[in-house]
Amino acid sequence: MDLKEIAKIIDAELIGENFEVSGMNTLKDASKSEISFVSNSKYIKEIQDTHAGAIIVDKKSLEFVPQGCSALVVDFVYWQMATLTKYFAPTIEDETLPHAKIGEGSKISAKAEIANGAIIGKNCTIMAHVYVGANSVIGDNTILYPSVVVYRDCKIGNNCVIHANTTIGSDGFGFATNKMGEHNKIYQNGNVVIEDDVEIGSSTTIDRAAFATTLIKKGVRIDNLVQIGHNCIIGEYSVLVAQSGISGSTTMGRNVVMGGQSATAGHLTIAPFTTMAARSGVTKSIKESGVTFSGFPLMEHKLWLKLQAKIAKLIV
Amino acid sequence: MDLKEIAKIIDAELIGENFEVSGMNTLKDASKSEISFVSNSKYIKEIQDTHAGAIIVDKKSLEFVPQGCSALVVDFVYWQMATLTKYFAPTIEDETLPHAKIGEGSKISAKAEIANGAIIGKNCTIMAHVYVGANSVIGDNTILYPSVVVYRDCKIGNNCVIHANTTIGSDGFGFATNKMGEHNKIYQNGNVVIEDDVEIGSSTTIDRAAFATTLIKKGVRIDNLVQIGHNCIIGEYSVLVAQSGISGSTTMGRNVVMGGQSATAGHLTIAPFTTMAARSGVTKSIKESGVTFSGFPLMEHKLWLKLQAKIAKLIV
Amino acid sequence: MDLKEIAKIIDAELIGENFEVSGMNTLKDASKSEISFVSNSKYIKEIQDTHAGAIIVDKKSLEFVPQGCSALVVDFVYWQMATLTKYFAPTIEDETLPHAKIGEGSKISAKAEIANGAIIGKNCTIMAHVYVGANSVIGDNTILYPSVVVYRDCKIGNNCVIHANTTIGSDGFGFATNKMGEHNKIYQNGNVVIEDDVEIGSSTTIDRAAFATTLIKKGVRIDNLVQIGHNCIIGEYSVLVAQSGISGSTTMGRNVVMGGQSATAGHLTIAPFTTMAARSGVTKSIKESGVTFSGFPLMEHKLWLKLQAKIAKLIV
Repeated sequence: MDLKEIAKIIDAELIGENFEVSGMNTLKDASKSEISFVSNSKYIKEIQDTHAGAIIVDKKSLEFVPQGCSALVVDFVYWQMATLTKYFAPTIEDETLPHAKIGEGSKISAKAEIANGAIIGKNCTIMAHVYVGANSVIGDNTILYPSVVVYRDCKIGNNCVIHANTTIGSDGFGFATNKMGEHNKIYQNGNVVIEDDVEIGSSTTIDRAAFATTLIKKGVRIDNLVQIGHNCIIGEYSVLVAQSGISGSTTMGRNVVMGGQSATAGHLTIAPFTTMAARSGVTKSIKESGVTFSGFPLMEHKLWLKLQAKIAKLIV
Repeated sequence: MDLKEIAKIIDAELIGENFEVSGMNTLKDASKSEISFVSNSKYIKEIQDTHAGAIIVDKKSLEFVPQGCSALVVDFVYWQMATLTKYFAPTIEDETLPHAKIGEGSKISAKAEIANGAIIGKNCTIMAHVYVGANSVIGDNTILYPSVVVYRDCKIGNNCVIHANTTIGSDGFGFATNKMGEHNKIYQNGNVVIEDDVEIGSSTTIDRAAFATTLIKKGVRIDNLVQIGHNCIIGEYSVLVAQSGISGSTTMGRNVVMGGQSATAGHLTIAPFTTMAARSGVTKSIKESGVTFSGFPLMEHKLWLKLQAKIAKLIV
Repeated sequence: MDLKEIAKIIDAELIGENFEVSGMNTLKDASKSEISFVSNSKYIKEIQDTHAGAIIVDKKSLEFVPQGCSALVVDFVYWQMATLTKYFAPTIEDETLPHAKIGEGSKISAKAEIANGAIIGKNCTIMAHVYVGANSVIGDNTILYPSVVVYRDCKIGNNCVIHANTTIGSDGFGFATNKMGEHNKIYQNGNVVIEDDVEIGSSTTIDRAAFATTLIKKGVRIDNLVQIGHNCIIGEYSVLVAQSGISGSTTMGRNVVMGGQSATAGHLTIAPFTTMAARSGVTKSIKESGVTFSGFPLMEHKLWLKLQAKIAKLIV
């Protein structure tokens, strides 16, 4: 698809050169053959540094588009960007891909479904009613318990254990909303990558990225019923206790501990070795590492204990 | 089954005419051929307006039963009503129903199970290990990702997307409890209806109604690990973020937003365009539309911010 | 495997007699042929009363090992104990076990998977995409809805109903962590036992015990998306509302009610007939029965209401 065709799809005015478009991406990650967008004035600075070949903008932001970069001018950037994502979404399954490859020593249940294009490593155990999607890759010695679902294009490392009914790579919760209150799906064309030695509990959900990758690093431990939003990065050896929830695009350093039912807002950065007590609610990035927090709003655990003592006195 | 037989099952005294009973329902929704019940004195006013053919009551409430309506007099209304629900529960699967009908262009995985009596629309994608129960109807262009479970008698509209491991139509959490602390299941004989253009995340649970319908209206967006109790009505274009929970019989207007890990109590009405911040806990109905709330107990978001500032000062 | 071999595996000094080891267990539950461990000085008192044949200890604790009990002396007890659990883990499936036995009148979907060694009682309904693991036993008249997963060695009683996508017996969240922040899995070699007349909602997760049994007693009602950690005991007729979470090794008496999104910390004891309002957070054991609590930190519900009134006044 070239830029002219795209301009038609999203009803945009094309300013600049036409070229063959390979995909969509964020301003930061887009390459010369990709389209990006700027829908929020706080990202205007990022326009300067983008390598995107074209940017979807509104009239107000047009002047910030750098030389040599094409512009697609529309009225509602976020809505039109969402419309376009559909055109870059791969099919859910693709029968033209080669049959799945299964490594030596792997036991695949006859009741599992391994889609075309998938690759399973050596000595894996893939149990009944597991689904592994197109082009997904599972490393060596990995166990997928019954009814685990891995969507297409994801990657799971070596020596991982994923417990029953867990979902890897379902769509992130992304959509644009217009003035009528209607929603327009942002197709989630990224993936999930899980590195080696990760264990994940049952009925946990890890969403695929809108663009790029949701990343679970080496040695992470995730409990049951945990939610990880699209584009999160969970640092090495981090521990996410049951029913905790990490909103989209949050990045954690290594050995972060999230207690049971704790949660973070989106787009935060959490320093390594941070500990959140159970039920913590994190709304701001944490820069100093090694600190233990509690509460919602969040505060240092020591302070929270003090505060609860003070609050208790209010009753007297 | 006629009223006399029912009187025997629940050990009731029958006062009034006998008739053939078609089912059970609430006072508000019951028709002439249905039985209802009143177990809580605050619903006694509703007796006057009911169209039910018969009502299960205790001796104290007997006098409120309107003329022409039969009464089944028992000692423990709620317990005996629960006992009776079992007799109106359909079988889980029914081999006498006709084979499922599959619309043109739909791709049904050989590893999916479509029960007899189900109807799948056109151009659907029904993936591996999906279950669609008896008499359930799926609209056109709808995608059910792997291991989605749709119980019997439910209805899903056109252009819906339901992500992996999500359950539609499991039994609502209903039971009567006696003085010994024992529980008696209230069979959930209603269903779930999901209108067009709805997207639902992974490992979300939407319970079928006890009677009537749990309703998800057009254009709603539901994230992962969300709980929706029996008999809820979720208004058009509402947005339920991950791990939020809506208790039974709560009705939301259009474009309500429930933040992550927020929750409502049951039997509430939430005005359209209400926004609940993450972790909000809603215990009373909300009448004014367009307001943003926070906290538990709930308050206007602005007030909550003020209050947190005051609370923080307690530590000094 | 005898004690000498085990000493080699975990690089321990063996003091005392060698014997053939049958398994691992807690100090309290271990028998003469089992190994236990003491990694926390607060359990040193329990050493005196243990029946374990051998105990993994560090040098400091060696002196407390009772006469006639062998000692395996290591530097890092918890880490080495974790290492050893792997050697006692059964295979996930075992083709040498006899074919599953199915009781009279039971309907097993052709798309369910019943592993070798499993036993299904009479008149059960085992629906599509259910998995029942090796040696697991299902009682009479029990219904497993689609995509329920029961891991090996578990036991479910008579007249139980387990809704779709629920997982029984996945691994508890157990691991040792070294000074490098790396984790070492504690294989969960116990099981889950669910007694008669229990109903469990959809996408709920109940973890198997590390050693011994996670126990759900007669008549319990569990809603959707509930988390029950390893080694918990849930008392008769208790009610766990949606999205509540019970941390590992907590024991509840009968008829405890946990409201929606409530939670307990681990290793607590909750008195019978305790009620926790929605969102309660329980961090200490509750000794007096029949009391209603709220809040986090937890307090009596009446107090909590008073406190919220006082807090509300802070804004004025």
